[in-house]
Amino acid sequence: MLKQMGKAAKAASMEMMNISAQKTSAALLAIADALIDNTDRILSENEKDIAAFVEKGGKKTMVDRLKLTKERIFDMAEGIRKVEGLSSPVGEVSSMTLRPNGLKIGKKRVPLGVIGIIYEARPNVTVDAAALCIKTQNACILRGGSEALLSNSIICDIISQALASVGYPENAVQLIKNTDRSVAVEMMKLNDYIDVLIPRGGAGLIKTVVNTATVPVIETGTGNCHIYIEKSADFNMALDIAVNAKTSRPSVCNAAETLLVDEDIAEEFLPAIYDALAPYCVEIRGCHKTKKILEDITLATEEDFYTEYNDLIFAVKVVSGTNEAISHINEHGTGHSEAIVTNDYSKSNQFLDEVDAAAVYVNASTRFTDGFEFGFGAEIGISTQKLHARGPMGLNELTTTKYIIYGNGQIR
Amino acid sequence: MLKQMGKAAKAASMEMMNISAQKTSAALLAIADALIDNTDRILSENEKDIAAFVEKGGKKTMVDRLKLTKERIFDMAEGIRKVEGLSSPVGEVSSMTLRPNGLKIGKKRVPLGVIGIIYEARPNVTVDAAALCIKTQNACILRGGSEALLSNSIICDIISQALASVGYPENAVQLIKNTDRSVAVEMMKLNDYIDVLIPRGGAGLIKTVVNTATVPVIETGTGNCHIYIEKSADFNMALDIAVNAKTSRPSVCNAAETLLVDEDIAEEFLPAIYDALAPYCVEIRGCHKTKKILEDITLATEEDFYTEYNDLIFAVKVVSGTNEAISHINEHGTGHSEAIVTNDYSKSNQFLDEVDAAAVYVNASTRFTDGFEFGFGAEIGISTQKLHARGPMGLNELTTTKYIIYGNGQIR
Repeated sequence: MLKQMGKAAKAASMEMMNISAQKTSAALLAIADALIDNTDRILSENEKDIAAFVEKGGKKTMVDRLKLTKERIFDMAEGIRKVEGLSSPVGEVSSMTLRPNGLKIGKKRVPLGVIGIIYEARPNVTVDAAALCIKTQNACILRGGSEALLSNSIICDIISQALASVGYPENAVQLIKNTDRSVAVEMMKLNDYIDVLIPRGGAGLIKTVVNTATVPVIETGTGNCHIYIEKSADFNMALDIAVNAKTSRPSVCNAAETLLVDEDIAEEFLPAIYDALAPYCVEIRGCHKTKKILEDITLATEEDFYTEYNDLIFAVKVVSGTNEAISHINEHGTGHSEAIVTNDYSKSNQFLDEVDAAAVYVNASTRFTDGFEFGFGAEIGISTQKLHARGPMGLNELTTTKYIIYGNGQIR
Repeated sequence: MLKQMGKAAKAASMEMMNISAQKTSAALLAIADALIDNTDRILSENEKDIAAFVEKGGKKTMVDRLKLTKERIFDMAEGIRKVEGLSSPVGEVSSMTLRPNGLKIGKKRVPLGVIGIIYEARPNVTVDAAALCIKTQNACILRGGSEALLSNSIICDIISQALASVGYPENAVQLIKNTDRSVAVEMMKLNDYIDVLIPRGGAGLIKTVVNTATVPVIETGTGNCHIYIEKSADFNMALDIAVNAKTSRPSVCNAAETLLVDEDIAEEFLPAIYDALAPYCVEIRGCHKTKKILEDITLATEEDFYTEYNDLIFAVKVVSGTNEAISHINEHGTGHSEAIVTNDYSKSNQFLDEVDAAAVYVNASTRFTDGFEFGFGAEIGISTQKLHARGPMGLNELTTTKYIIYGNGQIR
């Protein structure tokens, strides 16, 4: 069955490779309209998903992720209209060189082909992923969590009908409705038909996909992010950035998990950050040196420094200087987002050069690592690996290149 | 043991991330000199490898790949000197945008980190891979075939000594001397220390790595390449290109395996190409329509059209026109290199747009798909997949990017 879907997706992707921008826009706008028009049908299926999930004893935070409302559906449709308005990278020839033998070799941006997306309980990912794939002329095969099956099914049916209504390849977006694990495994090994897999969800899901898939995977990532306060830092700036990175949205991957403080300023800075974090009820877990200064905090274990809390907990470590801060980050970090607060020119450069992460900041909160904040107008995830895409992934990262070569009879 | 090597490689790669171009050049030139100085030692170990391989009944073609000579070692050293002279992409900031909030976001080209290379019996790959990795400031872990173990070992020892002699991190290049399959499998799953795996060798090796590895793989590929003669083609150009693509070096991946001919010109073109190929003793395996015109050829099976012969065999198929040629290629090709010979403007554009391959040619031989012919000055392989790198891979493809962000206190 999956092979049939794969074949259909490949065929759709071949049609889409050369489709006009007008047709792509028409398809996206038709989907946005159809979602609004079918709001009641979507909400009714979503209610069934939620009822079944609650009955099974599903967690309240998960229910929130699963739940759709009229407003959320409106936002989903607005999101599609925004994607429609972005300029597509497909077709751009980024370079064209003339070789000594007269060959003209151009590098052209083209769709990836068929993208597989594996995600958890959030039905808005269905719409989001479909819109980004259509905009970049990629077909997609979606596999969402079983808790959201009815919601995802109705959304995908509406998408297919909308595509058909404007003469767009209907198999551009397909949902795997069999949520058995074995089918997901089969999908991860469907190398003949799927060009790339993008898992979107928690660390467990991503690890499973990386370990199981033979299809190339773009790993979107966990973020154990650090804020390092160098001794020359502006004190108020340092406090603002540390508080913002920890507390503005602690559950997301670009939130900070560990604060590193230079020992020369620790006695002054630690009590100040302690007071600044107090209104947010942040639990501080500090190293021995930290605990000497802030006596009533918890002592951090080595494990703490490897943990992405996604919560109002902040690990704190006093370091001897920039060298120790950088080694600590490269050892414990997940290569997501790292920041130094400093007013020292050479320390700022050293940090930018030597920290091995997707996004390295001087004097700003790590919370800016995001496709919208970076100006991409869209985001399919944040890559913490080094192949193909690193950092926030926008439309460009959903494309590849091919060489187009113009000759006049050259042989070798 | 492998974990220790991984740790050492990671540590070396951290040192290399910020190493000066002078030191990189000194390291490369020291290796080139050391290879020449130690020619006799290398040849003596290589002779032992060959003797053992011949005793085991190794194939003659394999012996040729395994064998080193004074000239080949000289060429290896010259190759390193050429790599030293290339300009490195590392450090380039390809874009820097100013966001409305004042953040300056730059995209900087940086080394991948640690590259694992798995290859077969050719000891020159050891030198080649090491040089390209050092030039791009990547550490590498090499795993060559067991037949070449003594040759690879002495070469790697010489490389390490040369690196040490100029104060370069010695663990920049490490060879896995235990050639057990289980160790190779362990290497393919060493995600904590290896950033990318590049297999170099035959289809079997590449398939094994793709199916086994959890470390991201850059697939270098097999080439089932096509030459399509459209009806408006210049006849002599078409003959030259078809003969060149098939016969100039049939064993390589950019050689053509199938010839597609428009039916309108088949009666005239097929006898001409038959005569043109005759001096090269090329066996033609044709479809039914081809066999009607060239009666004494072999009838091709469907399997023939999927086969990368790497030999003086040419599959030939008569097609109804450009649409059929493109679907045949997208169905049977391996996404490597594909060529149309035509004088029709819209057909040439259709072929460039719709053929899904790393390199698509108009009026030139597929034999040009090569890092040197493309002007990269180096080549680590030819990628037939779509992630990260597609087509010939030079220095640029051995790097990744990171975002560097300059703020002045921005919070979100």
